Amino acid sequence: MPMDLYFDNAATTRMSEAALEAYIRTERDFFGNPSSVHADGLKAKKELERLRASVASMLSVKKECIFFTSGATESIASVFSSLLFLEPGKAIISRIEHEAVASWLPILSHHGWKTEEVKAKGGFVRCEDLEPMLTPDTKLVGVMAVSNVTGAIEDIASLVRTVREYEKTSRRRIFFFSDSVQALGKIPYSVTDLDIDGASFSAHKVNGPRGIGLLYLKNPSSFRPLSSAGGQEGGKRGGTENLPAIAGFEAALAEWMSDAAAKQARIAAINKMLRNTIASCGLDMLSPEASSPYILSFASPYPSEVFVRMLSDKGISASSGSACSNNAKGESEKIMQAMGIRSDKARNAIRLSFSNDTSDEDAAALASAIKELC
Amino acid sequence: MPMDLYFDNAATTRMSEAALEAYIRTERDFFGNPSSVHADGLKAKKELERLRASVASMLSVKKECIFFTSGATESIASVFSSLLFLEPGKAIISRIEHEAVASWLPILSHHGWKTEEVKAKGGFVRCEDLEPMLTPDTKLVGVMAVSNVTGAIEDIASLVRTVREYEKTSRRRIFFFSDSVQALGKIPYSVTDLDIDGASFSAHKVNGPRGIGLLYLKNPSSFRPLSSAGGQEGGKRGGTENLPAIAGFEAALAEWMSDAAAKQARIAAINKMLRNTIASCGLDMLSPEASSPYILSFASPYPSEVFVRMLSDKGISASSGSACSNNAKGESEKIMQAMGIRSDKARNAIRLSFSNDTSDEDAAALASAIKELC
Repeated sequence: MPMDLYFDNAATTRMSEAALEAYIRTERDFFGNPSSVHADGLKAKKELERLRASVASMLSVKKECIFFTSGATESIASVFSSLLFLEPGKAIISRIEHEAVASWLPILSHHGWKTEEVKAKGGFVRCEDLEPMLTPDTKLVGVMAVSNVTGAIEDIASLVRTVREYEKTSRRRIFFFSDSVQALGKIPYSVTDLDIDGASFSAHKVNGPRGIGLLYLKNPSSFRPLSSAGGQEGGKRGGTENLPAIAGFEAALAEWMSDAAAKQARIAAINKMLRNTIASCGLDMLSPEASSPYILSFASPYPSEVFVRMLSDKGISASSGSACSNNAKGESEKIMQAMGIRSDKARNAIRLSFSNDTSDEDAAALASAIKELC
Repeated sequence: MPMDLYFDNAATTRMSEAALEAYIRTERDFFGNPSSVHADGLKAKKELERLRASVASMLSVKKECIFFTSGATESIASVFSSLLFLEPGKAIISRIEHEAVASWLPILSHHGWKTEEVKAKGGFVRCEDLEPMLTPDTKLVGVMAVSNVTGAIEDIASLVRTVREYEKTSRRRIFFFSDSVQALGKIPYSVTDLDIDGASFSAHKVNGPRGIGLLYLKNPSSFRPLSSAGGQEGGKRGGTENLPAIAGFEAALAEWMSDAAAKQARIAAINKMLRNTIASCGLDMLSPEASSPYILSFASPYPSEVFVRMLSDKGISASSGSACSNNAKGESEKIMQAMGIRSDKARNAIRLSFSNDTSDEDAAALASAIKELC
């Protein structure tokens, strides 16, 4: 029987036992609908707000600024669909955004918006490329915090500063959105320090449940979602609150964030060890130096799908790019080309991604397998 | 210590042990991302399609016609937001729709759509009221299958027939949508027999997990969602599939649908017993005769919020209207007035709602409490 070595944590992580226990406990103890005014409902509402405060404190934001959604895709959709209420203007996103963001450009376009993509040569969006694209009608700029394809850490602080400087001259607000799915708990990261207006997060990338995520809004009062439906989440997100999943998210995050720096350092050591292995095989690294320790992309000697299967035969799960790109063929390749990665390398790309439950032993076994195969 | 008698199942039910076990088992055994092509991903993908086939078979629909979402609110949003891609036309919904549907009218209006509401005198939408509203530019008609406020069962079959007849003369297709959240498993109900084009369902109303639901589409190939994001669910719904919740949904539904007629008959008997109790107290029934056995609305002697609290003090959870309407004050009252219920009765409305786990003993205790209080 092959080993079971899982290195596709950027696609989804395993739910931790603490998260699963919190899910079960909350489902049993707080089955009421937080919108109901009877005792079961009020008890559930109180627990929802306790969990919100806890998650907010771990993100160092006010609890009024976070809204639970079904995941990052919905958080992103909430922001982009809200634009459909505004007078059309210009939206700028980076050329390396996840499809959950990029898929909104044709929609905005259809509704009379100008849409532009800022390049990301070498994997990084540069202020000097963004600055000349800013115009008085620019209403949104979207740049992801960490690339899901290579792990590249974008310089969001400088990009936001560029936008804020421009705002001073144009005297018009620009909503800076950052899809932060791969940043949460994986690099030092603060939406408030960065002065971002909106950000998306997902639980299942940090050992939390699938089907739950977050929308962060700096100024919720000025945000009008496309639909408020049943009016839950302060009118920002309709639908019965998924309380057990929120509890699972909170428990996963509490575990993840406890001594986070040490955990990140351990994963960084695994990353470094694997980089050495890959280099010793004479293979090219596709992740730049300034990457999240949790993602490592390299060019294998074979086409991606072939090498993924070779690894899979050895019980190793890795990815050719982002998992979602398997539904939108060639998406990761397109993104890698936008980063300036040669297409022959992009076609052979393998993404290894880690979680805090990735053991040193598993990483060593992966290194042996790579040496053997390459 | 007060009893714990739960009669707000139309807001949310308890997750069954079978559903919770399926959630846990699937989270542990199928943690891979179904969009990943490695062994863990393929295994998850296979399980996803097995669960889809099982759920489809319980709904007597083809598995290609169902799409998992985060719940009914999202299923509804998917249908209504898809209209924003079309040339504006007319959308007609009933005056008694849930806010998750009704909240879309101003959005469509904002985008140049004509929007109209068909009345529901006595709680029921009538063909003779709908028919004259149909025009060549009508693109959608939305009528819920079962009212979440009174349980009234709408005559969807006749309404669809009226629309289909009109289509023959106008030679233009009209999308018939039916929010079917309170119909699933609670009345004999088939989207295919009714010839509906789209319907929304929710797991947590049938002892399944919160945060998971269904969108049924008769002709998926002609449906273009506002955003396909990561391209999951055949391009109809982006976002990592919530596999454990889907498994919980399937398990809950399997339990619910096994010997469903007998279960519905038992709840109907409870409903009848409570109707007798309420009548013997000289109180008015607000649910019409042709209602789901799972919902019973009546006019209490006190304002709703007072009586909800009086019941709550006895350990009984009931609702003043729909749970969501607590976020949108007066919503249930507005709907009851549209039904022709006098406003003094509407203000005193109490909704009792049942699940298959409602015991005869609990129902008897509820009857005693009502007799005592009224």
